[in-house]
Amino acid sequence: MRDHGFFHRQGRKLSRLAFWLAVLVPLSVAVGSAVALFLWSLEWATQTRFDLPWLIWLMPVAGFAMVWAYQRFGGASGGGNSLIVDEIHQPGGGVPLRMAPFILVSTVLTHLVGGSAGREGTAVQIGGALAGGLGRRLSLEAPSMRILLICGIAAGFGAVFGTPLAGAIFALEVLMIGRIQYDALLPALLAALVGHWTVLAWGVGHVHYEISFIPSEITGWFGVDILLYAKVAVAGLAFGLCARAFAEASHGLTALWTRFVPYAPLRPVIASALIIGLVYALDTRAYLGLGVWSAIPGDPTLTGFLQPGLTDYTSWFWKFLFTVITLSAGFKGGEVTPLFFIGAALGVALGALMGVPTDLMAAIGFVAVFAGATNTPLACMIMGIELFGATHAVPLAIGCFTAYAASGHASIYGTQRIAVAKT
Amino acid sequence: MRDHGFFHRQGRKLSRLAFWLAVLVPLSVAVGSAVALFLWSLEWATQTRFDLPWLIWLMPVAGFAMVWAYQRFGGASGGGNSLIVDEIHQPGGGVPLRMAPFILVSTVLTHLVGGSAGREGTAVQIGGALAGGLGRRLSLEAPSMRILLICGIAAGFGAVFGTPLAGAIFALEVLMIGRIQYDALLPALLAALVGHWTVLAWGVGHVHYEISFIPSEITGWFGVDILLYAKVAVAGLAFGLCARAFAEASHGLTALWTRFVPYAPLRPVIASALIIGLVYALDTRAYLGLGVWSAIPGDPTLTGFLQPGLTDYTSWFWKFLFTVITLSAGFKGGEVTPLFFIGAALGVALGALMGVPTDLMAAIGFVAVFAGATNTPLACMIMGIELFGATHAVPLAIGCFTAYAASGHASIYGTQRIAVAKT
Repeated sequence: MRDHGFFHRQGRKLSRLAFWLAVLVPLSVAVGSAVALFLWSLEWATQTRFDLPWLIWLMPVAGFAMVWAYQRFGGASGGGNSLIVDEIHQPGGGVPLRMAPFILVSTVLTHLVGGSAGREGTAVQIGGALAGGLGRRLSLEAPSMRILLICGIAAGFGAVFGTPLAGAIFALEVLMIGRIQYDALLPALLAALVGHWTVLAWGVGHVHYEISFIPSEITGWFGVDILLYAKVAVAGLAFGLCARAFAEASHGLTALWTRFVPYAPLRPVIASALIIGLVYALDTRAYLGLGVWSAIPGDPTLTGFLQPGLTDYTSWFWKFLFTVITLSAGFKGGEVTPLFFIGAALGVALGALMGVPTDLMAAIGFVAVFAGATNTPLACMIMGIELFGATHAVPLAIGCFTAYAASGHASIYGTQRIAVAKT
Repeated sequence: MRDHGFFHRQGRKLSRLAFWLAVLVPLSVAVGSAVALFLWSLEWATQTRFDLPWLIWLMPVAGFAMVWAYQRFGGASGGGNSLIVDEIHQPGGGVPLRMAPFILVSTVLTHLVGGSAGREGTAVQIGGALAGGLGRRLSLEAPSMRILLICGIAAGFGAVFGTPLAGAIFALEVLMIGRIQYDALLPALLAALVGHWTVLAWGVGHVHYEISFIPSEITGWFGVDILLYAKVAVAGLAFGLCARAFAEASHGLTALWTRFVPYAPLRPVIASALIIGLVYALDTRAYLGLGVWSAIPGDPTLTGFLQPGLTDYTSWFWKFLFTVITLSAGFKGGEVTPLFFIGAALGVALGALMGVPTDLMAAIGFVAVFAGATNTPLACMIMGIELFGATHAVPLAIGCFTAYAASGHASIYGTQRIAVAKT
């Protein structure tokens, strides 16, 4: 009888496995395809913005239109990433399928007119919306729906940055501060990999990041460059405080808009005036859009920060300002690529100040500010390894873990729960 | 007033930070130094065993002496790794300081006479014992003692394998099945790094593992070698089942010894007879000791499995048998290096069967069987990246996560708690 029970259990496991494969593979292919379309559109929008500089004057119109459309037709879509995290914790009204087209179109529009925003929020929302839609169609029970939503996040994140391992870990780590649970470890990995591979299969490439700094074999005391690591830890503290300031500024500014501009579609109009004013006051368009690359020579860019030997003390601050104004007013897009920019730029500043190779410090800031702002130190360490290789794993870990410890309980995702308080 | 509170809080945080730095750095230097001494002694014991083959006949004497000494003078030391994990969950009698010299001497003795055992248990126990001793001397409260013990594990593990990131994550991940909590993320990283650096500073090197397999740029459908990854997932399943069998065989055999040989010091004497019998029946000494390298040409070894193009279908089974007999009878040492050997050997067998480069599959098995047997998939994935580089991160993750999912709730550490059940 024992053997019968054993085979019965294994049979149930196999049918569960078959069910999840049959659900997750098509879902992740769909998410990956939508993300590929999104990345392609984003590239087009960025290129078009550089080709037609007058598009910036449409910023108020675009902002008004998108906030108005969200209010009128978006339903719960406006909840964004926080809604998905909340639905995983506490199943409620579900994640509406229309969130996917809404976020895709409005993010591309934001980038077309020059809003300073990112991509990960969009990809995660595409993933969550498709997962939510599929789950309702299949009438999944709450525990399975939860797994499906986690997989949607993993597929979206893994696909948009080309970092599937970070995507899988991020989807589990972002739910709670201070704890990862392995409810969906294997499904999340599968979803992130298939999402990533789908983007590759569509022929949409990712920006290849690389830093030239190579740790020499023998440096410092006893072959270990303690001083370098100590400086990285101090920088990590700064990255964490910057992340905390970003999260608090975002929430604070959103509260101000709500209080002083009750009619929501008017907020991006005013924000546009501020952004355009800043563009002309600073005489640069470098802080518009994604910031990964620029058609204008000499602009500070994310890829540029990873070049050795830069000096730049102010870019991080301006990008910070442009981004919180853009996103708090209701423009759509993620926060993460701007956080990469802010972190890498702050890394360049700190590296120059502390006498550390700026490209190494930029790479650390790249992932560490994000780690602090989303409380996902492991996912960000792994992302750093996926982007920059295992050579720099130790300084990347020091940066991410320190930033996590220093960022407090602030988070750009308002519905993240605290499992283990930071002390 | 708000600012006053802010500075007061920051001041308290800084003094806490200073306290932990002042405690953790000396502790980790001590752990690292003891581990360096241990690694050096182990190398001496292994070399001596090859030089003086007759030492194997002392196995029964050595076994009798060490189990007798543990019973008579060891106090709670015999609890080993499980005691440390238990003390972290539920502070009780504490981890005795004498655990450190006991485990160091008895492990070296086990290896000198040819027992099939590992290193990680020893290093973790050295770390835990020194942490426990220091914590009692400082009269730390339970929550701080808990952090200190976690750091002891991290320092020991990071130092013994030269993989500090894996050490830090392992110390947090090993406590519970299915959950990592970030109670001591930064302290564990600091301890693991300082422990590792201390070993380096003593000039004790680690075996450098490397595999020659390089994924070609364009393989499989759409540039992704889906078939390879599917085979890795199937192998991961086998690695997980092997890990489960190892854990269950260890516990089962220990129960048999307890039942049929009530006088504990007699158990290793009988086990020695079995081991020596196997050595002469199989006419090989390849499954004695650590198995990382061998002075006898043609022996299967851990480093050998990572060479390309091997065929070996049986080594994993024999090492499995030698190890469970050795350790269940009361010889001392870790389980992890034998698990590396078993996993790598099983990887060679599966790679040859499935038409996958055996060196890649050996590298995956190396970490995946360990991941399954200790329920630490993230630590093992990171260890794989630290040992073999980020190039193979995806197959390493697939192997570790699948093995984790397949190994059930079996664990070589009996006191690990289940936080999230595997389904």
